[in-house]
Amino acid sequence: MSDALTTLRRELAQIEDLGIASRVLEWDQLVMMPPGGAQTRAEGLATLHRLAHELFVRDEIGELLERLRPEEADLDPDSDDACLIAVTRRDWEKARRVPADLRAEMTKLSSEGVEAWAQARANDDYASFRPWLDRTLELKHRYIECFPAPDDPYDVLLDDFEQGMRTAEVRRVFDRLEPALRDLVDAASGEDLEPFVTGPYPREAQHELSLVVARAFGAVDDVFRLDPTVHPFCTSFATQDVRITTRYAEDDLHGSSIFSTMHEVGHGLYEHGGDPALDRSPLATGCSSALHESQSRLWENVIGRSQPFWRWFYPQFRDGFAGVLADVPLERFHRAINRARPSLIRVDADETTYGLHIILRFQLEQELLFGGLSTADLPDTWNTRMEELVGVRPPNDRVGCLQDVHWSGGMFGYFPTYQLGNVLSVQIWERLVADLPDAYEQVEHGSFGEIYEWLREHLYRHGRKFEPSVMIDRLVGGPIDPEPYLRYLADKNASLAAA
Amino acid sequence: MSDALTTLRRELAQIEDLGIASRVLEWDQLVMMPPGGAQTRAEGLATLHRLAHELFVRDEIGELLERLRPEEADLDPDSDDACLIAVTRRDWEKARRVPADLRAEMTKLSSEGVEAWAQARANDDYASFRPWLDRTLELKHRYIECFPAPDDPYDVLLDDFEQGMRTAEVRRVFDRLEPALRDLVDAASGEDLEPFVTGPYPREAQHELSLVVARAFGAVDDVFRLDPTVHPFCTSFATQDVRITTRYAEDDLHGSSIFSTMHEVGHGLYEHGGDPALDRSPLATGCSSALHESQSRLWENVIGRSQPFWRWFYPQFRDGFAGVLADVPLERFHRAINRARPSLIRVDADETTYGLHIILRFQLEQELLFGGLSTADLPDTWNTRMEELVGVRPPNDRVGCLQDVHWSGGMFGYFPTYQLGNVLSVQIWERLVADLPDAYEQVEHGSFGEIYEWLREHLYRHGRKFEPSVMIDRLVGGPIDPEPYLRYLADKNASLAAA
Repeated sequence: MSDALTTLRRELAQIEDLGIASRVLEWDQLVMMPPGGAQTRAEGLATLHRLAHELFVRDEIGELLERLRPEEADLDPDSDDACLIAVTRRDWEKARRVPADLRAEMTKLSSEGVEAWAQARANDDYASFRPWLDRTLELKHRYIECFPAPDDPYDVLLDDFEQGMRTAEVRRVFDRLEPALRDLVDAASGEDLEPFVTGPYPREAQHELSLVVARAFGAVDDVFRLDPTVHPFCTSFATQDVRITTRYAEDDLHGSSIFSTMHEVGHGLYEHGGDPALDRSPLATGCSSALHESQSRLWENVIGRSQPFWRWFYPQFRDGFAGVLADVPLERFHRAINRARPSLIRVDADETTYGLHIILRFQLEQELLFGGLSTADLPDTWNTRMEELVGVRPPNDRVGCLQDVHWSGGMFGYFPTYQLGNVLSVQIWERLVADLPDAYEQVEHGSFGEIYEWLREHLYRHGRKFEPSVMIDRLVGGPIDPEPYLRYLADKNASLAAA
Repeated sequence: MSDALTTLRRELAQIEDLGIASRVLEWDQLVMMPPGGAQTRAEGLATLHRLAHELFVRDEIGELLERLRPEEADLDPDSDDACLIAVTRRDWEKARRVPADLRAEMTKLSSEGVEAWAQARANDDYASFRPWLDRTLELKHRYIECFPAPDDPYDVLLDDFEQGMRTAEVRRVFDRLEPALRDLVDAASGEDLEPFVTGPYPREAQHELSLVVARAFGAVDDVFRLDPTVHPFCTSFATQDVRITTRYAEDDLHGSSIFSTMHEVGHGLYEHGGDPALDRSPLATGCSSALHESQSRLWENVIGRSQPFWRWFYPQFRDGFAGVLADVPLERFHRAINRARPSLIRVDADETTYGLHIILRFQLEQELLFGGLSTADLPDTWNTRMEELVGVRPPNDRVGCLQDVHWSGGMFGYFPTYQLGNVLSVQIWERLVADLPDAYEQVEHGSFGEIYEWLREHLYRHGRKFEPSVMIDRLVGGPIDPEPYLRYLADKNASLAAA
């Protein structure tokens, strides 16, 4: 290895160490920290983020990248070193475009905005949040102006989560999905809620059963932790140190820890399956938001809401909740956790309706930014569109336009990746089944090792080495394609209707 | 505030943020982290420590301190700003004396040495650890040479934990203690162990009762966490974010979580009681190791092993462990947790014997460094001196010279502060009782608020503003004095003998 490459690796490892430390502090804040620690923690995180950024955007990093150009030309483009140089160059050029004062303003507004949103949501007081949203939109425009004019200004925001993804491509996928999903939801509606859905599902049994599934999926104890939190998430500090969080709603099967655990374990397996040689480098994480979400959804939905999975797991699960499930046959249970049903809240939506929630947000955030939709009109527009798209009208903003944290934290461009992840999860599963035709038979026997190994070999181990479009092409042999996903949903809805 | 002072405060806050992040990572490693995270965590901590050090020893910090000299002369010397400047100047001058390569070597050897020690202790294989000890002693000599020749070379090591403390002063105190403690231990020996000491003390009840005591002492839930770990410790990330850890030996009353919790809560209250205005500055911690230990010992021993405390707490405690304590009267219980009895292990020693363990280490570490004691002869010398001092001979090195981690991590000079803390705890308590004559009556009623407030007002709130000798003088009206402590032990031993 050349001196320049050794130096670059060392510099990046040091910057990554600061990033890992930030993630430990964030995990601690959400899972462990007494409330008294909040103010000091916010200041500490700001320092770590700022130092990491300052160390990264130094001229020295750019000079190292320049010195590495001849060497880079001789490297196998798929090698860790070539990918490290390419990804670092792209990250560095992008990071250098945003002036320090704008970045500081965005960071500050983001944490204040989340605070204002939490308050507004608690009081169902959209008006109090509106000035923060206006200010956030203003900064987003200044952010976009830092970059060369793209085909669509929304491309700049997408790029932060899905590098290289174009708005036009998302639109192509969503335009195909929207009418198809509406048809499926319309066809399925009108059914009463099963009484066992509201529990009670005692927390202790949820915890034990969640651990059973997490371990079966491959979340080994030497690497993974599972802890309770308010809004479940997954984070990792190394391929061998992965933190899953979950929640234990006792009165709602859909909000039980089983599904949130399977979801976050999916994220966690992606992080755990990375090549350990990439640890402490910018390549040590998933490739993109959509690919990450494809893995949470693959494990939660494609596997975790399938009939084969529940043929294996339902006997244990029913025993754990005998109070509500003793007389519920597998088919009724499987139907309850799958059937489409219009809903107000995105995170509680069934697989079919979920995409419509995302399409709403994708449309509205573009209209807010570029389409002349005033923040004053957001609640009404939200509610009207919900009625058109999903068929239900939110009775208030808490369950309407105030339900998600993303906009308050400045995360415009994130929402579409959730649905792209859903679409990808089925594309990837089809490729996996082509290689492992008995995959669902393995699931039915509670055996997930070969499935994990296939995903590790074809996706996880590469970390962030390749651009998302390249990674997706290698993995599924083409671009994002909504057809397998629509077939999967249509099959599922048809089988539920027939049951 | 002048520009220079504002800049200094901001620079120090940023460095302190890195220190806090390190402590969060260390706490997580010992309390939460899956074992798989160890390697990445070690590298991350090394980065944070190095960055904090590099930021601190910059010329810019020295220049700011120089620019502040005129301003400093006009400040009230007790003001936060004057103390911040003085403490920072001293820390900076000290940190600049140690070359970066020596510091890096020490850090690396320390973590490898602890690893080698853990292995050696597990296998009772001192010989395998000896090369690490030799190397550590060699680096300690190089470290000492970085500083101007002191009265006694051991002064340099003491200074890292007890700023300004002289070896001669420790010797003065310990020379007075040694024969007095030996007499007390000799007089008390020969008694059989009470059968209830070996439990069982179920873990769950220990946890519940430990929380009762922690909260009664002032460890409020919004600020404190209590978690299990192998070797209990306390750390804090802000005055409002304090982490206590404990252990739950079920077969040993002395190793139960009650005593380790009271000990660590004592440390925690000192951190919590600091003036929040000092948060994120170098003044935001206790004044010295001995003063810190004085507080863990005051809450654990002076309060937590007193008759008044157990008159309040024993009814609950006995109910929690009715299986072993139902027929044990308060007096017998109080006697069992207090009476002197020769022991092999420092951390399990009673209050009277404890000091002899420290005196042994204080003597041996000086002889290893400066007195010609070869590491080859350490085990034999340790065992012979234990027999002379304490009256028991270790049957192996695991319970002999391999029992403590300190030397393996390079912490020479730390041990004496434990015993100075014991001595100080009684000096401080006597001053407290002079102001609050009914302190023990309050304890007997389970009321600790006024005691905490007195300690906060007279000690905790000052953080690290004053030099230890100044702080001690303000607090107890003179230097460290072993007489109150010896009177306290003599009274306790006499009352136990009479009971």
